[in-house]
Amino acid sequence: MNAAPSVTGFTPFRRVALIGIGLIGSSLAHILRRERLAEAIVAADINPEFRTQAMALGIVDEIHADPTIAVAGADLVILCTPIGTYAAIGTAIAPHLAEGAIVSDVGSVKGTAIRDLEPTLPDHVQLVPGHPISGTEHSGPEAGFAELFEGRWAILTPVARTSPEALARVRALWEAMGSRVAVMDPTHHDRVLAITSHLPHLIAYTIVGTATDLEEHLKAEVIKYSAGGFRDFTRIAASDPIMWRDVFLNNGEAVLEMVGRLQEDLAVLQRAIRNQDGATLEAHFTRTRAIRRGIIAAKQA
Amino acid sequence: MNAAPSVTGFTPFRRVALIGIGLIGSSLAHILRRERLAEAIVAADINPEFRTQAMALGIVDEIHADPTIAVAGADLVILCTPIGTYAAIGTAIAPHLAEGAIVSDVGSVKGTAIRDLEPTLPDHVQLVPGHPISGTEHSGPEAGFAELFEGRWAILTPVARTSPEALARVRALWEAMGSRVAVMDPTHHDRVLAITSHLPHLIAYTIVGTATDLEEHLKAEVIKYSAGGFRDFTRIAASDPIMWRDVFLNNGEAVLEMVGRLQEDLAVLQRAIRNQDGATLEAHFTRTRAIRRGIIAAKQA
Repeated sequence: MNAAPSVTGFTPFRRVALIGIGLIGSSLAHILRRERLAEAIVAADINPEFRTQAMALGIVDEIHADPTIAVAGADLVILCTPIGTYAAIGTAIAPHLAEGAIVSDVGSVKGTAIRDLEPTLPDHVQLVPGHPISGTEHSGPEAGFAELFEGRWAILTPVARTSPEALARVRALWEAMGSRVAVMDPTHHDRVLAITSHLPHLIAYTIVGTATDLEEHLKAEVIKYSAGGFRDFTRIAASDPIMWRDVFLNNGEAVLEMVGRLQEDLAVLQRAIRNQDGATLEAHFTRTRAIRRGIIAAKQA
Repeated sequence: MNAAPSVTGFTPFRRVALIGIGLIGSSLAHILRRERLAEAIVAADINPEFRTQAMALGIVDEIHADPTIAVAGADLVILCTPIGTYAAIGTAIAPHLAEGAIVSDVGSVKGTAIRDLEPTLPDHVQLVPGHPISGTEHSGPEAGFAELFEGRWAILTPVARTSPEALARVRALWEAMGSRVAVMDPTHHDRVLAITSHLPHLIAYTIVGTATDLEEHLKAEVIKYSAGGFRDFTRIAASDPIMWRDVFLNNGEAVLEMVGRLQEDLAVLQRAIRNQDGATLEAHFTRTRAIRRGIIAAKQA
């Protein structure tokens, strides 16, 4: 690829290495290419099928099974793999990272991501942990698309050793990809995401699991008549199992606290139903509309 | 309106009375008109604003505050009001129903709808309870649209006194409106809907309520970063509070049974998170994908 400057005035990275070419990795490849934010895009994935698909899609210049080859000479490395892989990948790539390279990621939990990744990295590289608040229920390189991050938030959670320059560079990259950027403390990030993302996913997985366990004839009808609300839960519960396993293993404390609050609230509604207490139900159901209006006003609907 | 036969070969009703002109009532008006399934469409609504809006939209020929005026001379009356109103509306309209008229409804719970409505109706009218499995989170006549029922299921739950002819006529109407029709026992309907619709709504209302109770600064962030999954719940939890209050008051037993099952399943996942048991989480999250595939195959996605 040539080194034409991006339309946004962003100076392109020389070589971006995407470790993992699933939904997020491939979407990054699409937008990096479309906006000319990298002179070369290289990737690594352990899944041979994903490697073949990514090359066929023409979204990467090279793709390797071995991440240590992909990171060689890269001035930006972005981990796009489940959080549970970070310690092993960090340890493997560390000796191969270019002097002054920036290492970033897109993981949904930041506290343990930093805990696992930071100690593996040599002092000469910069760590800028990140998390784009966007996704779909689809997985793999063929699910990726350039618009995934458009108008969505990307949260960056710098650590003590992150230089202001490295943070600014990664912020500018996300902005060039169409995202709005917020910077926050990793622990705070994990607490906010526990309610906005992790709890909804846990509940969707639970309720779809409950339906899966129903008697066979009832299960067939649940599928048939899913348009009544259940359908939306199945979409969320179709998300990547490994990614979500790692989210819950790595943000357990915050998620369990939110589950506790949810159960208290559910108990109140259960009691209202049992006691035929229409006033409590109506008051609760009216209150929740305000949150929806807030989301529409914030243009995140 | 003129009495041109509908394109589907359906013989139009002479006069359809829609009691309640909210999302469902107004969508019925749109499609009845577009497909010429009624020579005249009259409506009743206690909300003066809704009456003004419905007339301005041009979807009804007449609209009245008093349902007894709307039903006069109608060969089909469809109740599109919250279930809690059925006994009072049935009692009010009964003396005004035309000889041999068909009374139907669109309520989300069929057992108590029949319990409340049937005893109020004179012997000369037919009762064909119904429930279209479709809707949006929006309310009121301006939210209605002709395509709401297209490709979706409409469930009919005839009672002992329902004549085969009346059932066939209502079935043909729903088919002419683009729906697929299923006939089932009211109690069975209520059990199926408890899991496909009522439980998902209760959970969405609960989780959005939990977020509403968060500390103010956290609540603002929940709105900002809602794209991670929470957003879908807020959409569901923005549904009409009165309608949903009545659903839970009228299908409490089946809903509470499903809540009990959900809580057992949630306890299993909570324990897996607490014990860092990745295998249980992964197995659960993998299993739930199959239900989503079933919904896509059934063309209800």
